Amino acid sequence: MKRRKQLNGSAAEVEAAFYDALNRGDIEALMHLWADDEDIVCVHPGGPRLQGHAAIQASWEKVFENGGLQIRPSQLHETHNLMSSVHSVVEGVSSTAATPAHLLATNVYIKTPQGWRIVLHHVSVAPGPVPVSPFVQSSLH
Amino acid sequence: MKRRKQLNGSAAEVEAAFYDALNRGDIEALMHLWADDEDIVCVHPGGPRLQGHAAIQASWEKVFENGGLQIRPSQLHETHNLMSSVHSVVEGVSSTAATPAHLLATNVYIKTPQGWRIVLHHVSVAPGPVPVSPFVQSSLH
Repeated sequence: MKRRKQLNGSAAEVEAAFYDALNRGDIEALMHLWADDEDIVCVHPGGPRLQGHAAIQASWEKVFENGGLQIRPSQLHETHNLMSSVHSVVEGVSSTAATPAHLLATNVYIKTPQGWRIVLHHVSVAPGPVPVSPFVQSSLH
Repeated sequence: MKRRKQLNGSAAEVEAAFYDALNRGDIEALMHLWADDEDIVCVHPGGPRLQGHAAIQASWEKVFENGGLQIRPSQLHETHNLMSSVHSVVEGVSSTAATPAHLLATNVYIKTPQGWRIVLHHVSVAPGPVPVSPFVQSSLH
């Protein structure tokens, strides 16, 4: 079995490492951030539900083979307790498509004996460009 | 402020009540199941991120005005601890569309002083008909 790197940061640090690995196309670093559990779940935009390391790693390898991604996570919205942390993130993507769109990700982390790890990553496509901080706006009225 | 019904069931019972209310178009029952917190998040298929009771209730009212939904939740995949429960659910929908599709939902519940409540509901469209129990199949090889 492969030796896993220790990573003891917070869920937010694991998330930063996730998007860093994703933008660099570093499959090994990306997969180290997931819980060592075959119950992990990943849903790419418009894609089916993938479960387990093999299926999820294969899907990211395909993304990287197709040129990779440049994702700017923003507008983190977090619900957490001592053992789990649920993040809702707006993913800005570089795109040349005629119809502007952005991505919405739900990222769930749990605290494992190895530190915080990803257990679920679910992304969907939303219409329009990245919204202008809706949470900040809504607190004003 | 509106009086809230007490509901002390498990996250699974809250989920069953959620899909029941959704299929009956019962907006009051549906909204009672969410945490009493303006940080709740809802993403409908292909939709933007909605936050807070007012925005989320308005979105469901629109769904019900447009004829409602018939959703059959299945293939629950669950990660939980004492305070939170993360569900990945396949949502089978009645559809007359030429291209078969199904929905994938991530539902997050937390234990509040009032009992288990929904804090996040994120749904996306996946290609093809409802898959035939992929988790059961994958455990066979």
